Amino acid sequence: MLSKNETTIKALPGRQELFIIREFDAPRELVYRAFTEADLLVQWLGPKNLTMKVDTFNPVNGGAWRYIHSDANGNEYGFHGVFHELQAPERIIQTFEFEGLPEKGHVELDTALFESLPGGRSKVTIQAVYQSVDDRDGMVRSGMEGGVKEGHERLDALLAKQQAN
Amino acid sequence: MLSKNETTIKALPGRQELFIIREFDAPRELVYRAFTEADLLVQWLGPKNLTMKVDTFNPVNGGAWRYIHSDANGNEYGFHGVFHELQAPERIIQTFEFEGLPEKGHVELDTALFESLPGGRSKVTIQAVYQSVDDRDGMVRSGMEGGVKEGHERLDALLAKQQAN
Repeated sequence: MLSKNETTIKALPGRQELFIIREFDAPRELVYRAFTEADLLVQWLGPKNLTMKVDTFNPVNGGAWRYIHSDANGNEYGFHGVFHELQAPERIIQTFEFEGLPEKGHVELDTALFESLPGGRSKVTIQAVYQSVDDRDGMVRSGMEGGVKEGHERLDALLAKQQAN
Repeated sequence: MLSKNETTIKALPGRQELFIIREFDAPRELVYRAFTEADLLVQWLGPKNLTMKVDTFNPVNGGAWRYIHSDANGNEYGFHGVFHELQAPERIIQTFEFEGLPEKGHVELDTALFESLPGGRSKVTIQAVYQSVDDRDGMVRSGMEGGVKEGHERLDALLAKQQAN
């Protein structure tokens, strides 16, 4: 399939939330699995020049997760949070914290919705809510967009491979 | 001590957050304990005409919690969430969901800060961040203010009793 799906990041000025919206050429059940199974997640999440290692991943209501991205020079970027709710295959609600910030305690609440589209396709909408507009703006300025888009392209490839099998 | 501490709830129009601010005539260590030990929490949290029962309470990073308030007629109001971070005695970051809403998945991210004040007193500031302004406004309209204030008055009494011992 030649369709090129684009990642859209919406961050309205002055608000403490942003939205990441992306369609995939795969059913939502498959996309949901790629978000909630550690052995799949490590194959696509994040920038393509980083390696991802899962430290903790307990995909149940109330379960914790933690993973580390590392680059070729051995720099490590840790992230952790807790699953508030997993509602397969339609919704994930979780907390999210980047451990590399100057101080701890800057946490976002992420709600990911998985919708079915015609033709075996699907749409993922992730809302990230922040404790402040500054926190949200800091995340946008951090260059998250590039990493998110690269991750989605890697997920495209993973989903294509799964469906070819 | 005759000082009467007032609970302030700040909810600016159009924002998806609110703040609950309250001083207590007790050191923050004692107040923090009252928020994080189940046998103390049940003695003060919520309106005075309701009975609180703890179903789950695991006060560690990544731990889950659930409690039920019930009235004299047997009506039950469940709440649950997950602790993202407990930093004794200064900060609690957790998710919070009221199970009585028409649909699941309306979750808030709560950050409670405990500060020391002179004279063995303390101040608690709770920020609740919502997925939408509507969710925030719905919580305000639900009459939360009365329950929060009654809870704080019950906490005043508990803290006075603990310090008299």
